Amino acid sequence: MLEQLDRLMQQRGLAWIIALGAPAESADVYYLLQGARVGHALVLKRQGEPPLAIVHPMEREEARRAGLRWATPAEYGAAAIQALGLPAHQTAARLMLAVLERHQVRGPVSFAGHGPVAATFARLRAVLAERPELEHVLEEPPSVLQRARMVKSEEEVARIRAVGRRTEEVVRLVVRMLASCERRDGVLVRPGGEPLKVGHVKEYIAVELIRRGLDDHGQTIVAPGREGGFPHSRGVESEPVPADTPIVLDIFPQERGGGYYFDMTRTLWFGEPGERARACLAAVEHAFAAGLGAIRPGVLAAEPDEAASAVLERHGHPTRRQQPDTVTGYMHSLGHGVGLELHEHPMLSARPGNTDRLEPGAVFTVEPGLYYPEEGFGIRVEDTLWLRPDGELENLTTLPHEPEALLAEVR
Amino acid sequence: MLEQLDRLMQQRGLAWIIALGAPAESADVYYLLQGARVGHALVLKRQGEPPLAIVHPMEREEARRAGLRWATPAEYGAAAIQALGLPAHQTAARLMLAVLERHQVRGPVSFAGHGPVAATFARLRAVLAERPELEHVLEEPPSVLQRARMVKSEEEVARIRAVGRRTEEVVRLVVRMLASCERRDGVLVRPGGEPLKVGHVKEYIAVELIRRGLDDHGQTIVAPGREGGFPHSRGVESEPVPADTPIVLDIFPQERGGGYYFDMTRTLWFGEPGERARACLAAVEHAFAAGLGAIRPGVLAAEPDEAASAVLERHGHPTRRQQPDTVTGYMHSLGHGVGLELHEHPMLSARPGNTDRLEPGAVFTVEPGLYYPEEGFGIRVEDTLWLRPDGELENLTTLPHEPEALLAEVR
Repeated sequence: MLEQLDRLMQQRGLAWIIALGAPAESADVYYLLQGARVGHALVLKRQGEPPLAIVHPMEREEARRAGLRWATPAEYGAAAIQALGLPAHQTAARLMLAVLERHQVRGPVSFAGHGPVAATFARLRAVLAERPELEHVLEEPPSVLQRARMVKSEEEVARIRAVGRRTEEVVRLVVRMLASCERRDGVLVRPGGEPLKVGHVKEYIAVELIRRGLDDHGQTIVAPGREGGFPHSRGVESEPVPADTPIVLDIFPQERGGGYYFDMTRTLWFGEPGERARACLAAVEHAFAAGLGAIRPGVLAAEPDEAASAVLERHGHPTRRQQPDTVTGYMHSLGHGVGLELHEHPMLSARPGNTDRLEPGAVFTVEPGLYYPEEGFGIRVEDTLWLRPDGELENLTTLPHEPEALLAEVR
Repeated sequence: MLEQLDRLMQQRGLAWIIALGAPAESADVYYLLQGARVGHALVLKRQGEPPLAIVHPMEREEARRAGLRWATPAEYGAAAIQALGLPAHQTAARLMLAVLERHQVRGPVSFAGHGPVAATFARLRAVLAERPELEHVLEEPPSVLQRARMVKSEEEVARIRAVGRRTEEVVRLVVRMLASCERRDGVLVRPGGEPLKVGHVKEYIAVELIRRGLDDHGQTIVAPGREGGFPHSRGVESEPVPADTPIVLDIFPQERGGGYYFDMTRTLWFGEPGERARACLAAVEHAFAAGLGAIRPGVLAAEPDEAASAVLERHGHPTRRQQPDTVTGYMHSLGHGVGLELHEHPMLSARPGNTDRLEPGAVFTVEPGLYYPEEGFGIRVEDTLWLRPDGELENLTTLPHEPEALLAEVR
């Protein structure tokens, strides 16, 4: 994985990357540290050399176990710097300067990682003011790290595939559980007799994910009816689960403790959702197929979004390319890369300025949707796919899209 | 809660706070948005006015439901700005400038939140260069937001207390489960006959937390023997759980989906850990009592750490105040604030430059520990406490510290 990064650093003319943050919150840091379970780290990556992580001494065992090149702040005189009793921002900047000095970090250098806005801004500003020879390069996204992460190795794909397999197991279980409910007064009722709540479904999913080493971070979307008409509404825990109404189930767990994601959505119903919802699902299916049909190695990632938009427009739905501010119809883009971040490059979006391309090795979602909250529903279908090194497109998702087919499959 | 912030902003002379990030990853943003379940937001907080959140249109329903003052980028000409096809950093900066212009944001202004290092740095630098009248104030920590969050309302304490109650339920369950194991060849063996692994214990804890609406983010520490000698080692999933050896169980779950934390640690053993480990636990208990004894309203938060250090030194253990770089003995500070962040102000640390004070309303941990990985163990005891508005110290943790007492309690 890191050879790829070295090649991209060379192309971009970067001598060093300086990354800050915790692997659990920064995909760049996770990638550079290859998943070492340390907390916050300062990572120095020189072109052609393995990364060096400066970690807290409390975490030296995790660093050692992961086989990192590592050091602790003590080796850079941290105690003497702290003993000066300077304001915290200055202490942090001095420590960072001591590290950069020791390793003779010279530009061009790019920054990466994730952190607190004010402290990070203060630290970088102070460090760059003190050491102009760092020649800070502001990389437009995708940065070289984001580009390196865009092309997945076989090992990364194997991990994503394994997350997908376990995610689909959980989707089977939850659909079966929902199907085992009775329908009474328009809502699903558990075999015991109690109405099923959205919160029950989410808890059920979360527990089954944990048992498979996955974590949904409490973010799974279970959005029935009108809720499903807002793409990011997560559903209301205390509400009952309706029958005869489309339910958007969007599940995107990550390897527990940090790592790779998988992302899939199914729209379910248990009963008869009506002609309009069925017609919208059919249109979404056409858009899905059109999106897939536009995927070729090297194609602009905007093209599949254009293709899906054209189909949905033909079906009479508003799209963002016709009405950029639309909040109904097809109001988002077709998909996004999936890896150490849930949303990463390539962005399958016709948004102006998007120059991402679908390169072999990319893993991404295709997820057209239609949103009509005033009509009381939303529809979305989402799979995670892999554009293989041989140029073939492989769907890492195996469950059928259509609610009835999915029900038949899990029974 | 927000009146407190207004008062602190006034004292500090801040006209505005501009916060960036997602409530799920920024406690400042969560606090300003009072827990609204939106994704990324740009939050404008003017002194004396409720915050305004700029959210993605996909999340408008969550914003509405939470009762926020909110808007979407569309209202600031986002589509026209995007249509320019500028580089991403410039697009983001232009949009932020449009928002600041519309709301006539003038300085002094402080930034808050959490985000990607490079993009955030670029955006703030561009915005400040364009609008010097923002008069950026670099706040030394604790910032006014961190100070506002330091003093908990009754409602916040009630939530932390509820997390604590549920956390202790899970600790009871897991101790009972461990106690139900047989001891065979120096390891714990499940009633079924299989050796218990660290990973089993972690999964058990995670599932029971989920069932109580809590999330440990895969970070719970189950660190037996030598692992426990490194304060942040999380334990190795595939390793068996030893008998007769101290096991550090450090559990710090958060309300699921984002919210308040609770933090507690117990050192357990099932059998006889030996004289040295027992003596270390006794010293840690003395240090705990000394730390508590030094807590009074308004005291420097360094003082309890000094008091605990003095006790441990008398017991013959290395401490950071005698050897700042020590990696054995008492190698961390006494505690930290607990709230929307696991580690927040006040910091109970004798580190130079720490000016935090323990004010009424603060919730924090007291967690002395001793670490001797070469001797094959670590010991830590941690409770979460509340310094009440009436000046009394209330321990929000109820389970006993000593392993035998804890076992007796849960049986």
